[in-house]
Amino acid sequence: MHWNARPNRLVGLSQADWAWQTSRMKHLLLAAAIASLVSPVHAQEPAPIPSPGEIAAAAPASDWVAVAPSDLIVMDLAPDAKGQARRVVIQLMPAPFSQGWLGNIRKLAAAHWWDGTSVNRVQDNYVAQWGDATEKKPLPTGLAAVPESEYVVRNWCGGHICPPLRPVGTPENVLEKVYGGTGGFHRGWPVAADGRDLWPVHCYGMVGVGRNMSPDTGSGAELYAVIGHAPRHLDRNIALVGRVISGIEYLSSLPRGSEALGLYKTEAERTPIASIRIASELPAAEQPRFEYLSTESASFARYADARANRRDPFFIKPAGGADICNIPVPVRPVAAK
Amino acid sequence: MHWNARPNRLVGLSQADWAWQTSRMKHLLLAAAIASLVSPVHAQEPAPIPSPGEIAAAAPASDWVAVAPSDLIVMDLAPDAKGQARRVVIQLMPAPFSQGWLGNIRKLAAAHWWDGTSVNRVQDNYVAQWGDATEKKPLPTGLAAVPESEYVVRNWCGGHICPPLRPVGTPENVLEKVYGGTGGFHRGWPVAADGRDLWPVHCYGMVGVGRNMSPDTGSGAELYAVIGHAPRHLDRNIALVGRVISGIEYLSSLPRGSEALGLYKTEAERTPIASIRIASELPAAEQPRFEYLSTESASFARYADARANRRDPFFIKPAGGADICNIPVPVRPVAAK
Repeated sequence: MHWNARPNRLVGLSQADWAWQTSRMKHLLLAAAIASLVSPVHAQEPAPIPSPGEIAAAAPASDWVAVAPSDLIVMDLAPDAKGQARRVVIQLMPAPFSQGWLGNIRKLAAAHWWDGTSVNRVQDNYVAQWGDATEKKPLPTGLAAVPESEYVVRNWCGGHICPPLRPVGTPENVLEKVYGGTGGFHRGWPVAADGRDLWPVHCYGMVGVGRNMSPDTGSGAELYAVIGHAPRHLDRNIALVGRVISGIEYLSSLPRGSEALGLYKTEAERTPIASIRIASELPAAEQPRFEYLSTESASFARYADARANRRDPFFIKPAGGADICNIPVPVRPVAAK
Repeated sequence: MHWNARPNRLVGLSQADWAWQTSRMKHLLLAAAIASLVSPVHAQEPAPIPSPGEIAAAAPASDWVAVAPSDLIVMDLAPDAKGQARRVVIQLMPAPFSQGWLGNIRKLAAAHWWDGTSVNRVQDNYVAQWGDATEKKPLPTGLAAVPESEYVVRNWCGGHICPPLRPVGTPENVLEKVYGGTGGFHRGWPVAADGRDLWPVHCYGMVGVGRNMSPDTGSGAELYAVIGHAPRHLDRNIALVGRVISGIEYLSSLPRGSEALGLYKTEAERTPIASIRIASELPAAEQPRFEYLSTESASFARYADARANRRDPFFIKPAGGADICNIPVPVRPVAAK
């Protein structure tokens, strides 16, 4: 007995779902052909249940929200050993989140402060982190000292009882309650909220601000990206400012540092950063363009419900739920017109 | 104003916690010195609240369970470009989990079937997968065809109502209920259970059996390891057989494949597997020795509670909960005697 053990249906991320539509069609055509041999009355297969990625891909253009180039950071790492370019694109969080640190980050990028710095730390199943390894490079003037109260959006309903986060799918499935607050989505971002506060959460790819011991909340000059299982214990303990929307593999596949916390032992192990720019500073033709699926749209509600209850081919048993970090907000590049 | 922006307290994994005890001690000594200058009555600082890693490290020897070499798989990848060895050690799951596939995996390892195969697929935030890229290598005889009913341990309480999984810390904090079942720990493994069945869950580092479309559940010849946020929608949809307990960075930092599902485009991109052996087949002196913290111990209960409620230095706001995959079971090498 021989198995074709390659799990070509082992899919779970929207990008993969999209890519495998063609293969699925082949399978379904084959299934239909077999069905017609065995039982002609079943020759007309019912339409397959779409995957989360297929639901997102089928969303109308009006459900997608363009990201302004002024809200994108372009980080160009030095080319790899084969000379290949390594571009990481980060979407910055909108108001009202983390505005103090974001103001600093805009100033640091405008000053080209990160050019010549490096990725200094890669800890497996945790974070990749970049900034000035010497810790001696002078910061631009005018950076704000941001208080730790800004880790959350306080009293975000203006003194009223906050409405619950918009349920997606069935609330018991997609509103997560494991952590100290109810998880959901707000204007394209994974968040949690209690009756008073709203805060962003540490999902894979989220970008935050390194800090030392409290009450120093960090300037924004040292940043990290999550490259492992969502470290949710960091929520409300450190500032989140954005997420990697393209090129995270250039951070997540870097060699892990052998020192404590994944710090590199030698200068040679660090990955140099050629430049970091706000995308709107680049010539118009070079500005990357991205859009995300509105988390307030009906398409997103269907997508999230499907993430929590996979019934598309390959899946036998729907999970009946999902943690918020297992419902990544679909983001895609916009084709040049 | 200048920040020391390096978050040398940005810790979250037990290994890092252990490593930074020394640094923490320095900080506390400094804090005590300052306190004694400012307010002599506070010169005696209260003992710091231990981190989860410190709790595990302080557990008595009797709380640690040795892993038998017969339950360890040693996978030696070809040395890297610099000639450095890359050894991945996988702990196999105990009875009653996934025994059909585990029997096959033992036969495949005993036949040295994987020698000369390769890592063929690395998909970011998902899985690294290995086996025979040609899909033509004959399998050993005698492998079992395992039914999908074995994705769970059915009726694991013998017809009685199952007792709940042992709560650790406060039940509402550490018993996770996001997914379709209550998450907890059983004999050293992250699991979920409902009133009838028990099943292992897809946390970071868990190893599973690639499969094609149902009802083909895979032979065990094609295996994957989770290298991203826990893909819990795969629970009960595919077989889990173990976890990587050493060397996962040799899989998680491999370049991502550029084809659909992270498959590599060319043979040259694949990482050759020199050999895969059950550790008990190796000469005694070469057998790796590991132990894990008993999930039935009081030490583990304290550890898990601390993972859900970080109050050690650096943390300002305990999360008040944790998903099961954010409570990795501590595993460590046993020093040679």
